Amino acid sequence: MKPDLSLLQPLDVNLATRVNVGDSLSRGAAQFPSRAAIIDQGTSVSYGALNDAAERTAAALLDLGIEHQEPVAMVMSNSWQVLAVYYGCAKAGLVALPMNFLLAPTDQRWILADAGARIAVVSADLVPTLEEVLADAPGIETVIVVGDGPTQVAGRDTHDWQRLLDARDGHTVEVAVDDRDTVQCLYTSGTTSRPKGVLISHVSLQIALLSNAIIANHRWGHDWTVLLNVLPMFHTTALNTICMPTLTVGGTIVLPGPFNPDTVLDAIEQHRVTHVMMLPVMHGACLAAQRGRARDLSSVRTALYGMTPMPPSLLDQVDDLYPNAEVILGSGQTEVVPATVMQWTEHRHTAADSWGPSAPTVMTQIMDPDGAVLSADQTGEIVYRGPHVCSGYWNNPAANATAFAHGWFHSSDVGHLDEAGVVWFTDRLKDIIKSGGENVSSVSVESVVADAPGVAECAVIGLPDARWGEAVCAVVVPDGTVPAEDLEAGVIAYAKAHLAGFQVPKSVRTAQVLPKTATGKIIKHIVRENLNK
Amino acid sequence: MKPDLSLLQPLDVNLATRVNVGDSLSRGAAQFPSRAAIIDQGTSVSYGALNDAAERTAAALLDLGIEHQEPVAMVMSNSWQVLAVYYGCAKAGLVALPMNFLLAPTDQRWILADAGARIAVVSADLVPTLEEVLADAPGIETVIVVGDGPTQVAGRDTHDWQRLLDARDGHTVEVAVDDRDTVQCLYTSGTTSRPKGVLISHVSLQIALLSNAIIANHRWGHDWTVLLNVLPMFHTTALNTICMPTLTVGGTIVLPGPFNPDTVLDAIEQHRVTHVMMLPVMHGACLAAQRGRARDLSSVRTALYGMTPMPPSLLDQVDDLYPNAEVILGSGQTEVVPATVMQWTEHRHTAADSWGPSAPTVMTQIMDPDGAVLSADQTGEIVYRGPHVCSGYWNNPAANATAFAHGWFHSSDVGHLDEAGVVWFTDRLKDIIKSGGENVSSVSVESVVADAPGVAECAVIGLPDARWGEAVCAVVVPDGTVPAEDLEAGVIAYAKAHLAGFQVPKSVRTAQVLPKTATGKIIKHIVRENLNK
Repeated sequence: MKPDLSLLQPLDVNLATRVNVGDSLSRGAAQFPSRAAIIDQGTSVSYGALNDAAERTAAALLDLGIEHQEPVAMVMSNSWQVLAVYYGCAKAGLVALPMNFLLAPTDQRWILADAGARIAVVSADLVPTLEEVLADAPGIETVIVVGDGPTQVAGRDTHDWQRLLDARDGHTVEVAVDDRDTVQCLYTSGTTSRPKGVLISHVSLQIALLSNAIIANHRWGHDWTVLLNVLPMFHTTALNTICMPTLTVGGTIVLPGPFNPDTVLDAIEQHRVTHVMMLPVMHGACLAAQRGRARDLSSVRTALYGMTPMPPSLLDQVDDLYPNAEVILGSGQTEVVPATVMQWTEHRHTAADSWGPSAPTVMTQIMDPDGAVLSADQTGEIVYRGPHVCSGYWNNPAANATAFAHGWFHSSDVGHLDEAGVVWFTDRLKDIIKSGGENVSSVSVESVVADAPGVAECAVIGLPDARWGEAVCAVVVPDGTVPAEDLEAGVIAYAKAHLAGFQVPKSVRTAQVLPKTATGKIIKHIVRENLNK
Repeated sequence: MKPDLSLLQPLDVNLATRVNVGDSLSRGAAQFPSRAAIIDQGTSVSYGALNDAAERTAAALLDLGIEHQEPVAMVMSNSWQVLAVYYGCAKAGLVALPMNFLLAPTDQRWILADAGARIAVVSADLVPTLEEVLADAPGIETVIVVGDGPTQVAGRDTHDWQRLLDARDGHTVEVAVDDRDTVQCLYTSGTTSRPKGVLISHVSLQIALLSNAIIANHRWGHDWTVLLNVLPMFHTTALNTICMPTLTVGGTIVLPGPFNPDTVLDAIEQHRVTHVMMLPVMHGACLAAQRGRARDLSSVRTALYGMTPMPPSLLDQVDDLYPNAEVILGSGQTEVVPATVMQWTEHRHTAADSWGPSAPTVMTQIMDPDGAVLSADQTGEIVYRGPHVCSGYWNNPAANATAFAHGWFHSSDVGHLDEAGVVWFTDRLKDIIKSGGENVSSVSVESVVADAPGVAECAVIGLPDARWGEAVCAVVVPDGTVPAEDLEAGVIAYAKAHLAGFQVPKSVRTAQVLPKTATGKIIKHIVRENLNK
């Protein structure tokens, strides 16, 4: 019962009916060409201009000889050009590969090699970073530099992005793109192991973007979204849950530059921002800045936070800060965005510390290691099904076999569902400490140790131990209020008062800082490595 | 750059990542099993119960020996069972074929034969209708009767739906379904020709449902949609733009039974309805009924209307009727839903009579017969692109070649875009009257003639004419206020006062009634045929 389309040119049907996330810019440019798509530190880029830059980028990349579904490494700092290049890749049937340029050069080199990238687009200010990465990586042949700065990358065929664009005639690129072609490859932040390339198809991402738009109460038409973003755009949160849904529903993205609470609050007031998404610590800084000088924040309809839990007391204050906003925690992972959504209005009294229930296009269950679905309140691995689950990991059949076992995507997160369908997170699967026959959630121990006298922040890990199998170890950053020689005993005493015996750390180590990802998550495998140095 | 999934069972990956609109019920049943999915004239059917009925329907159909992607004719009156059967087909990889049982038996017979349907699910109250249709149609082998009533259809293998369900064990049906498998085949209402079967795939429909949810301001979570439907569920409007988006975002559908304004207003008050969708004439009847007895309609957030334009004076009254609602016209066709959206708040002063701008996942242009895209304010055929454009027409390669020519879906509607991207409808392509070298919009003439003294309603068509090519003819239903012998002269005089000379009807005929589709559209080819009787 498939239509007989044999009389048609495939390209005709593809262009009329395909799913290509790049087409949303074409639609915006056709319908509201002069509306601001992005306001980048005061520079307004219209839908017409953004789409034109994306189309010319697509044409330029194809003219450089890149092949269908080849990756384009993007080493770019937050700017409107990130989205022009990303959508250009989508339109051309290429794979956008935004890179976390804060990773160690060895990790960046590993990603470029793993992806087999031959071409990189780089912000001018990041050329020195890229050059360090490339010193030992022969794969990249061509570099396109965006913005004013160095115009030559040693040993590579280098082009100026703007000149490439100026040399095109502005015609629309028309390439057949399949629904399940990959549009994006984001490498996981690698909190537990080597980064893995997560492949997302056009159809998955299109559905994810619409689903995210519904969660965050984006609207279509005259009352359009004005969204402020300060998070790094190489990460799925800023890219897939914040910026791209906004462009999908004809909204405006405000990029106020590097995070500064006063700049953020001024931008909300000036641009009548309707949607903000920040880390809890950023919302906290904005609270303080607003006390210093009050701005009109009444335009904000949705205040999102992510990545880490927010204490109820802070949530209440954020709720007050934006008087007309719903406060929402959106959770997910690079492989499944969105996964869950916690609305403060609904969950204030019952599930403030949870991840909330599943998002509209996701089904969540808890699974045991044999593939049996567990009942409410039983703890096991959190697994997902849904049309926006990723296609799999690039170049990694073993990881795919594990990830899709038993017909569910395995998140590597451990938790449980309650009777109301709310997801409660216990820990990352690899961070669960198996000590004396008990499973210890490192997250639970951390939440107590963080409150112990003298502790600024902490990470809890398991260390190999002859007696316990693994021994619970707290690595703490001292805040200087407790003498160094008293710290370990104080932490253990505090833990004993608040935790079950098997959860109490057997040892306490100190560190000056804890290694973190660009979005603030502690990288535990480096914590472990540092202890062995 | 496609993932190497070779180690996996295809079914595993399919179940974890596929697009199947039937899965939204599985998600609802997992997350909020006891929430009402449908309240059907007082009977509440939970997400758990609806999903269970759909799963058992899927299993029963497969057990009857139906093959992957075979059509299931649904001859069903509005009820919760329509959605149970539809979602059952989706889950089983079958094609749901809801039938317009108000069509003439010859048309219904033609549809069943064209689709090659071997199995029909029929509401008990419609068994006599189906028997008349089947008298001369051998294709249908098996009939499943839903509800209390006749249990045998002459000459067919007949089953009772509830018994089929009771005989299953309630296990989830797990069948691999492809994104672009067809989920639904709706035959067009045939206002201009024989009905054509419009094929919609899972991926198109999933995106359409999310897009419709955004247009109508559906929300996810604690503040869920309660939507009232009175339109026939065999039609794309009720099915794809009203009921299915509601189930996609975890909302509740209220079916108050056959349209009655008092019943509708009572149901809005009783169930705290947030979304209503009605024809303009129904909104008008509700206005009158509310004057008779005021109900609390403050819960309505979105008041939708469709199918036919609503005069601004009535729109203002509807806007007042629902004090907290946004009034929205959603337009589209079976092949492209949604296509456009007019928000009364935005378009009150500039574009009240338009269709509004395009919906979020649609791009609209105006095309000349040679495939050239026209500029703003130029009139031509309205064409669409977008991920929820239909796959094509069943069994009709000639229609597909025309429909997808030049890489755009051709709507067979004529109109123009203004500078603001708003779509203005002129007429159906086949209803444009070519008279004396001029193109006359039948719709424009109708809007004037309808206001002429003595006219209750009218249809304007072209009649073959030696001098003019086609001559404009108005077919009017008299309202009895003007003597029959004066009617033609009066209508022509009124038209001369309000229209250009070439638009004025050359003749006026009378009729007792005008033939209409189930959703109130005049069927012009029958108007023409009736004149020749």
